[in-house]
Amino acid sequence: MTGVGAEGIDHVSIAVVDLDGAVAFFTGVLGLRQTHVEVNEREGVSEVMLAGKSGEAQVQLISPVVVAGADASGGNLSGVAKFLSERGSAIHHLALEVADVEVAANAARAAGVRVLSETPLSGAKESKIVFLHPKDCHGVLIELVQLAN
Amino acid sequence: MTGVGAEGIDHVSIAVVDLDGAVAFFTGVLGLRQTHVEVNEREGVSEVMLAGKSGEAQVQLISPVVVAGADASGGNLSGVAKFLSERGSAIHHLALEVADVEVAANAARAAGVRVLSETPLSGAKESKIVFLHPKDCHGVLIELVQLAN
Repeated sequence: MTGVGAEGIDHVSIAVVDLDGAVAFFTGVLGLRQTHVEVNEREGVSEVMLAGKSGEAQVQLISPVVVAGADASGGNLSGVAKFLSERGSAIHHLALEVADVEVAANAARAAGVRVLSETPLSGAKESKIVFLHPKDCHGVLIELVQLAN
Repeated sequence: MTGVGAEGIDHVSIAVVDLDGAVAFFTGVLGLRQTHVEVNEREGVSEVMLAGKSGEAQVQLISPVVVAGADASGGNLSGVAKFLSERGSAIHHLALEVADVEVAANAARAAGVRVLSETPLSGAKESKIVFLHPKDCHGVLIELVQLAN
């Protein structure tokens, strides 16, 4: 394998001020279906996953739930509340699936891309994730996600 | 069908200042493969489609090619050059697949969502598209796309 070996889009994450309103919009108006809800305690956000028919690449809605508990050390999602206060609701990051997140992170480092944590973090549904610095990725905060087996 | 009937993510579009550099990064570093290139004369942008293994939801890179020729009347992609000058490279919009874009646009209107053109526009690969106002979509510029048969 050369490079990070991204296999495709796992999800597109949208930070929203009004989570209930956004879920109602993406399901009731747009027609996606809710597939998963999880609170990420480390980041202090609630995460709602939404899929279309195929259930492949999903839309993720994230919103702060325990802002005071957000961990600023990771340098990635911890800034969701700050992001929202600065920009309002908007697309937050793009998650690409990889087979092995540690191999992928090392490939990114080898290409000169800053990885925002030394070791992988725990993501939704027991996945393992890292974030890549948006300034090294043409303005996009990219998450690499290794799904649980 | 209730609502817009989105079937899932067709693509995530990233506006980039440096198209060649972004293509090299998303293919050579991240490992996606280029599947399509097209110049959208109406919007004055070059569009490059990138897929992972599955080839389902794709990443689209867009960049102005003929800024002077961009049509300001559509209110959607025509602002790519303006978007880039204000924010730099960043995720620009999220495209959701629908079976019938006119039915979907009418469903959006019925839900109080502003549709940015009265009739569908021509999209990449002979698709038919409309854009929904980001202020009615929790901060996200949403494209609804009906793929060509």
